[in-house]
This record gives sequence, C-alpha cells and structure tokens, in this order.
Amino acid sequence: MPELRRDPIIGRWVIIATERAKRPHDFSKTAESPVDNPEECPFCEGHEHMTPPEIFAFRDDKTSPDSPGWKVRVVPSIAPLLRVEGDLGRRGWGVYDIMNATGAHEVIIESPQHITHFGKLSREQIQLVLKTYIQRIDDLQNDPRIKYVMIYKNYGKEAGGGHLLHTKSFLIATPITPKRVKEELQGARIYYGYKDRCIFCDIIRQEQEMGERLILENDFFVAISPFASRFPCEVWILPKNHSCDFYKITEEELISLAEILKEIMNRLETGLNDPPFNFIIHTAPFRKKVKPGYWKTLEWDYHWHIEIMPRLTRVAGFEWGSGFYINPLPPEEATKFLREGVNNER
Amino acid sequence: MPELRRDPIIGRWVIIATERAKRPHDFSKTAESPVDNPEECPFCEGHEHMTPPEIFAFRDDKTSPDSPGWKVRVVPSIAPLLRVEGDLGRRGWGVYDIMNATGAHEVIIESPQHITHFGKLSREQIQLVLKTYIQRIDDLQNDPRIKYVMIYKNYGKEAGGGHLLHTKSFLIATPITPKRVKEELQGARIYYGYKDRCIFCDIIRQEQEMGERLILENDFFVAISPFASRFPCEVWILPKNHSCDFYKITEEELISLAEILKEIMNRLETGLNDPPFNFIIHTAPFRKKVKPGYWKTLEWDYHWHIEIMPRLTRVAGFEWGSGFYINPLPPEEATKFLREGVNNER
Repeated sequence: MPELRRDPIIGRWVIIATERAKRPHDFSKTAESPVDNPEECPFCEGHEHMTPPEIFAFRDDKTSPDSPGWKVRVVPSIAPLLRVEGDLGRRGWGVYDIMNATGAHEVIIESPQHITHFGKLSREQIQLVLKTYIQRIDDLQNDPRIKYVMIYKNYGKEAGGGHLLHTKSFLIATPITPKRVKEELQGARIYYGYKDRCIFCDIIRQEQEMGERLILENDFFVAISPFASRFPCEVWILPKNHSCDFYKITEEELISLAEILKEIMNRLETGLNDPPFNFIIHTAPFRKKVKPGYWKTLEWDYHWHIEIMPRLTRVAGFEWGSGFYINPLPPEEATKFLREGVNNER
Repeated sequence: MPELRRDPIIGRWVIIATERAKRPHDFSKTAESPVDNPEECPFCEGHEHMTPPEIFAFRDDKTSPDSPGWKVRVVPSIAPLLRVEGDLGRRGWGVYDIMNATGAHEVIIESPQHITHFGKLSREQIQLVLKTYIQRIDDLQNDPRIKYVMIYKNYGKEAGGGHLLHTKSFLIATPITPKRVKEELQGARIYYGYKDRCIFCDIIRQEQEMGERLILENDFFVAISPFASRFPCEVWILPKNHSCDFYKITEEELISLAEILKEIMNRLETGLNDPPFNFIIHTAPFRKKVKPGYWKTLEWDYHWHIEIMPRLTRVAGFEWGSGFYINPLPPEEATKFLREGVNNER
C-alpha cells in the first residue's frame, strides 16, 4: 500500500509509491519507447479492454461501458498513487506523521481518436473534456475522506509525460489540502482581509489597464503572462467573474474557456515548436458542512484559474533550496511573442 | 539590470534575468556541447585569464591573483543573476512588488586540475573547498544589504548543470531571506516552541535509535535518508552538535564533514551510475544587530544541514500544483542500497 508521509519541518507531503519500487539503479536506465501508433495505444477507441474498467464516459446512447461509442472516457490509473479503498489511518511515529494513500488517481482520455495534441481537439471536444472534469469533481466531492481534487496535464518528457502520447489529463484526489493550495488560499485571504478585494480580480484589472502582459481576452476569460513568471512563456488563464470553484463554471463560460484554451495551446505549440508543458487547474478545496447551515468560508476569497508552464528551462539547486526561481525571459517579452500568434518569424 | 519580482499571491520571488534574454523559441534549441577537455576549460590552472578577476583564492605564497599557484579559486559568475553594485530600490507597481537584483553570484572552482567529480577530490581538498565556503560567507555577512547566502551544486544536465564539467559550486547571496528558508525556520521554531527541543536534533536521535534510514555516521555527522524523501536516494547530512550556522563549524567538524561528504558522493556516483544531482547547504540567515546588545533570535532554533538530491525522476504537474512529491523508492530501500557502498551488484 502506498503511503503519505509528512516532512516534519515544513509540512510537505510525499507519496511513497511502494508498489512502483525498483532497485535504485533502475532509475538511471532509459524509459520505455513512446507509443505513437494507434494499434498499440490502450487509449484509442476499440481498445477499451486494455485499460481498467471505466469510471465515467460521455458515450452514444445504447453503447455499453468499456466498448466503443464514447467521446471522453475516464479510467483509473493502471498504477494508482492513491486508492479509493480503506480509511486514512492517520498515525504518528516519533516525530513523523504518516497516513494511508487514500484518494483517487484517474486518467481522462480526451479523444477516441489517436490525437496527441490538446490544441488539435475541436472546441466542442474541449468543452466535453472540461465537462468531464466537472462531472468527476462533482462526484468525488461526495466522498467525505476527500478534501481536494487536482486536474493536470504532463505533456512531453521534460514535463513528466509518460510513453503514451494519446492526449489525456490526470486527476488526483487527496485526503488533505495540498500545501501549495493552502499557501494560495492564505495569500488571497490576507489580501482580502486588508483590502476587502480579491487579489486575482485586482490582478486582472491591473493587467487589463497596463496591457503589456495581457495575451488574449474573450467574453469571460483573460490569458496573461504572470508578473512573476517562473518559466519562459508561462501563461495563466483566469475567469473574469470571481469564483473559487472551477466546477461551478456556467455553460456560457465553458464555451469561452474552451475557446481561449485551444487558442493558447496552439500558440504555444506553434511558437515554441511543440514544447513540453504542465497544465494545472487551481481551484478551491471542498467545503464540508461542519454543522447544518454553517460552512467554512476561507475559500470564498480565492479565485480559480489555470496555470500553463512550458518546461524549456531546468530547475536547479538554487531554486530547490530557496524557492526563488530564475526566469531568463521577461514576461513582457513572452507576451509580445504569444500575442503575435502563429505568424511570428521562426 | 536583472529584477527581483514577487508573486503577489504566495510571496514567491523570481529573478527576471533580463540580460540573458533570448527569443522564446531559442530555449527549445540544443545546449552548448560539454567542455570535457582541459585545454578549453576556463576553470583549469593556467587559464585564469578566461574568467573574471578572482574574488578570493587559497594560493601558494608569493603567487599573484589571477595566476597559477592556487588550490581553490572564487570568481564572479560570467553572467551574474545578482550584482554587488547599487541599492535595493524596493518599489511597488499596483499589486506588484519589485526590487533591483542586488546581491552576489560567484563560482567556487574546486580544483586547479580538470577533475569533474566532487567525490574524486582528496579529503584535504574537500576541506579547503569547505573553508572557502566559510570564508566567502564570513566576508559577505559584512554587507548590510545581504540577508542570506546559499551555496549549492548543479551536477549533470537534469540537475541544471551547464556545459563546463570542471568540478565547482555556486554561491548566491540575496537581499531577502528566501521563502523556502523561512518555511524551515518557522517549522523549527514552532516545534521548539511546543517541545523546547530542536526538531533536527530529535530527528537525529530517532534515526540513530531506529536505524533503518541511517546510512553513515562519524564523530560529528550523520547521513540519513529523510523520512519524507522527495527523490530516490535523497540524502541529508546533519551535524550532531546543534548549530544554526554552517560557517561557525569547528576545525574538527570540518575534517569529519569532508570525510562523510566524500564517502556519500562516491557511493551515489558508483551506486547510481554517475547520476545528476543537486547539493544544497541549508543554513540560517544572517542575524543583523538591531540595536547594541540585541539580536533577533528566531534562527537559534534552526539546525544547519546539507541536502543532496539525485535527479533520477522528473517533477510533473501534480508536484508543481500541489507541493506534494511522488517518490517511487521508499527511503528505507534507498538506505539499504547506500549502506552497501560501492560493492552492490549492478
């Protein structure tokens, strides 16, 4: 059983994935070769038997689970880091804290065809993928053990992408609110306490006024280069309407989000020559009813958003030790580049 | 002039290294080829003219700066991220905070010969390298603008190592205490406040008693696999005597540290087949005299140590978004492996 272990000094949690354990020198060996061939791909339509049984799918009427006829399909990870069975088993061990790795680890297969680039999906298909995210979050919030759901993409080797190239996202549901999420909630809360305004709403206003880091804007979303970008061409997509929960997005906003996402992904791909990237939805933790009529309210100050980080530079010792980042490309330059879209000189 | 920019939500600082700026698609190009040839290496003895003028060196009597005859040599980085000139220029810009990248960025050249592996240096040479670190920290603490000095190594491409293979370390001095360092200080302080004991001292005691994560021990140091290791074969080296400042180490401790460092580096190199790694000295920030006879005391709860992180796995979207880490090798397994030393089967 994998374990969750807490660093006793700074409270960072680590998933010790015991069932993936290898001999230490195995890590230095080369990885499996990429599967770029629909015939071998477990995520292509017709290969449903190659994955664990599906958890959810958008599929045609009268088709059965784990058979063709789907548009988006969700399956458990074949080597889950966290598992839905069992209780948390929180326990101490001298100075250390440990719990069972209870939660969920799912794969969202974004197309029945062997498409490898998210930006190549139609806007309608991206909407269906976003609806799948919403459906999964909405379902998992009923589990009282789960505090947080994170949805993310790892694309390309440098971004931790695996050997299966079929376009997909991952979902991890955790029994604790992750440290990084807590830091954002606290930052937003401190600002709100001081100003009576949301810091993300203020950022959107300032970026719209100044313009030099505003990449794109549509009815309901902005795409900006963050002022303190950690990586060259980092992009944040923020909803103009204040909301802490991604999964409460309206139908109109969903169309607008699919549109801006497709455009940004295509510009990154074309402009940066198909870069490795990570994509992460930052949303508030679940708010559990503490007693009837009373909800914890910390999260209302928060503003959900998406962070996209092309992985063109490497994180080294100074970054690991300090939490400082080194970015060789000013975000204002990145904005100029990403604004030009696909027509920039190469 | 490079800038320091603060993320307004979680207070993470980023160095925007404007003078290294390139066009965004340049980042996807391949890096310079490695310099593995003493004739082209700017760090070899006799090539002193290929670096900026030296800041410090341990050298033979009657030899002049920037000439042969040295044992360890310190030079400014050729493309410094922070510079010693100028004031901090702290300023706001709407919701954002910014300051000039004032500080220092130095290279510690660890041998006059073209040696590429730290573990291949003699114990006496490693002692000289450690003494150089101490000398530089001691010198920089006189600058009232500098709050923190971080010393680290990036070895190998995956760890952010550059194309110059000659063994070296880096020093970055910053005008603010880095966020990650603050988190450790706070963690240590909270524990001390609750228990009246140092958390690191308690960790050392528990690891000595349990044994299963204790790799090596000598008169003054222990080397352990941390309980919540983020990476396979992560190693922490901790002094047995409580002290918050690396640079106040005694002469006896220095010998003991050089010995354990050499041994651990050699075991990692042999056991993991020359892995990329980061090496970071975690020490307390400078304590500036606030008024005569009064010093801020937060740092006394802290316990300096060295963290060595082989980079055999990649950090992906879930880690970036959550602050959780995924480690496929339990630290107890790593300990067994590293204890066997160089004689394990391959």
